[in-house]
Amino acid sequence: MGKIFVDACLGKETPYTPVWMMRQAGRYLPEYMAVRAEAGDFLNLCHNPKKACEVTLQPIDIVGVDAAILFSDILVVPDEMGMDLSFVKGEGPKFSDPITSDEDVERLIGGDEAASKLTYVYEAIKLIKKELAEDKALIGFTGAPWTLATYMIEGQGTKTYNICKKMMYSNPKLLHKILAKVTEVVKLYMEKQIEAGIDVVQIFDSWASAIEPGKYDEFSWRYIVEIADYLKEKYPNIPIIIFPKGIPAFLDKVYGNFDVFGVDWSTPMSLAKEKLGDKYVLQGNMEPCRLYSKEETTKCVEAIQNTMQGKRHIFNLGHGILPDVPVENAKHFINECHRVSSKATN
Amino acid sequence: MGKIFVDACLGKETPYTPVWMMRQAGRYLPEYMAVRAEAGDFLNLCHNPKKACEVTLQPIDIVGVDAAILFSDILVVPDEMGMDLSFVKGEGPKFSDPITSDEDVERLIGGDEAASKLTYVYEAIKLIKKELAEDKALIGFTGAPWTLATYMIEGQGTKTYNICKKMMYSNPKLLHKILAKVTEVVKLYMEKQIEAGIDVVQIFDSWASAIEPGKYDEFSWRYIVEIADYLKEKYPNIPIIIFPKGIPAFLDKVYGNFDVFGVDWSTPMSLAKEKLGDKYVLQGNMEPCRLYSKEETTKCVEAIQNTMQGKRHIFNLGHGILPDVPVENAKHFINECHRVSSKATN
Repeated sequence: MGKIFVDACLGKETPYTPVWMMRQAGRYLPEYMAVRAEAGDFLNLCHNPKKACEVTLQPIDIVGVDAAILFSDILVVPDEMGMDLSFVKGEGPKFSDPITSDEDVERLIGGDEAASKLTYVYEAIKLIKKELAEDKALIGFTGAPWTLATYMIEGQGTKTYNICKKMMYSNPKLLHKILAKVTEVVKLYMEKQIEAGIDVVQIFDSWASAIEPGKYDEFSWRYIVEIADYLKEKYPNIPIIIFPKGIPAFLDKVYGNFDVFGVDWSTPMSLAKEKLGDKYVLQGNMEPCRLYSKEETTKCVEAIQNTMQGKRHIFNLGHGILPDVPVENAKHFINECHRVSSKATN
Repeated sequence: MGKIFVDACLGKETPYTPVWMMRQAGRYLPEYMAVRAEAGDFLNLCHNPKKACEVTLQPIDIVGVDAAILFSDILVVPDEMGMDLSFVKGEGPKFSDPITSDEDVERLIGGDEAASKLTYVYEAIKLIKKELAEDKALIGFTGAPWTLATYMIEGQGTKTYNICKKMMYSNPKLLHKILAKVTEVVKLYMEKQIEAGIDVVQIFDSWASAIEPGKYDEFSWRYIVEIADYLKEKYPNIPIIIFPKGIPAFLDKVYGNFDVFGVDWSTPMSLAKEKLGDKYVLQGNMEPCRLYSKEETTKCVEAIQNTMQGKRHIFNLGHGILPDVPVENAKHFINECHRVSSKATN
């Protein structure tokens, strides 16, 4: 039995358009909150393959998505490169010792040594694959080097990215040195995720919009493409999805050997189709806050279907689902995606 | 003696392209920090016409910009509508009692009664105009109704805007009621600023990018246009600048009776010129973090000049200047804008 989600990623025709939601294994689900409470904290949950497996599978059963996405966090990569990650309640992730110099970069653990430390991720993947239904796909993921580097340089989330950008404009060599070292680890990390059993790769460039359009290729996109090239050469049948958030002005410049372009909600689907629809399958892109209203959800799903016509398309939100969305509204979204895209079989 | 900045806003030819910087009266200037320390806190400074005048004029003398922008804060408007504004150190603005219902909106002070309470703003404008050199312009400003409403509904700054957006999608009537009431006050507020002496109006829609492109007109742009129409009918010679941050995907839909479109750094100047250059003078748009490097500043100023060719253009940053920028780099930016755009006189 084939996986409709994998087929759709590869541009094959499918009986309906598959759908999943970014952050679908998350805080809007009471079942997730229960497992997380047992685990103690967020990072413990990432480090616990059995519990990570459990929350990864929840949205398949509860809301009916067509693919599971590995429960983990993008920051486990810099953590295993030797940076000291913690999650401070109400403040988000923190690294105690941000990178400021060449020596700091040299001290980071690189390549296979770092990638080999992420055993809890590979263990979780193996467990999930044992339990996941044959017709559902498992998406593995990583942060893009730029997005990971922002945390490694700022030491935490940021509104202005001013420390990263000071480096970008006044010491670009150092920034490239960080990006290159992260890229090497990410390549091997994703390779090991594939070897452990994931069916599809997604690369999140969550902070893409922090770079001015004229510099985006230099400091982010080309590293993503390098990772995609590396994986595609070894694993041509594993689809790769790239999700760079907030770069409508860069669409004309998108290039690279990957399968699916993830469209965020700030980019109209019609614009993405016009610019990229011939080259890539498009994934997206309902504004996640529409989930607060079933009526607005239906309107948006119908409008996206009307634009995409069920061709070379995967339904998703244009960013992660928020914690205060009612579960039944999430189910409604999934059902509506299936309803509007189901093809008559005779 | 004419004001080159006003001429440029109206699309007239000028001997060089004028320049100013968003947040130019701000924390990167030691002289500003000194006055702010005397005032006690940020809101006190807004309420003190003499000190507001002093900091408004500082960047004219210190960095050599062509226009002063009134020192104030967009949130004085909801504050005088009866919401209780405070600035919590390190946390930003707070309203103790955010709007959640029709009754809350009805309780707000509206129209002329609210606009008449902002006397400290009008006093500051009169003082500034007395001291400002004849050839320099004074820009007055307001937040767009949507941007003001986000704070009034969330009670503070927000990363997700989820409370506003829940209202947008599940109770749009209430959101429109808030926006309409704010719009009425803003019209009269800007009229009184003009009567007090400002030469140019700028409307900041700082959180434009929080609205999906398909809903932006309904919940923000049309209210801005309504304000511009009102002012243009009474004061056709006062230029109006609109700065909606982060809406490259909306450029095709921009309409309205105003003079200058403020381009943020996420929109390439060439794209803005292609879509809007015939209809509006364009202002912008260097990525403010380029100010960390004089070399990158020069490159960017030259590239923008190359695109705009000194026609129907005002130089500015694509967002506000950050507090840790060296003053001499800001001066370098201003000088470079003047250098590249100066026309030979014989």
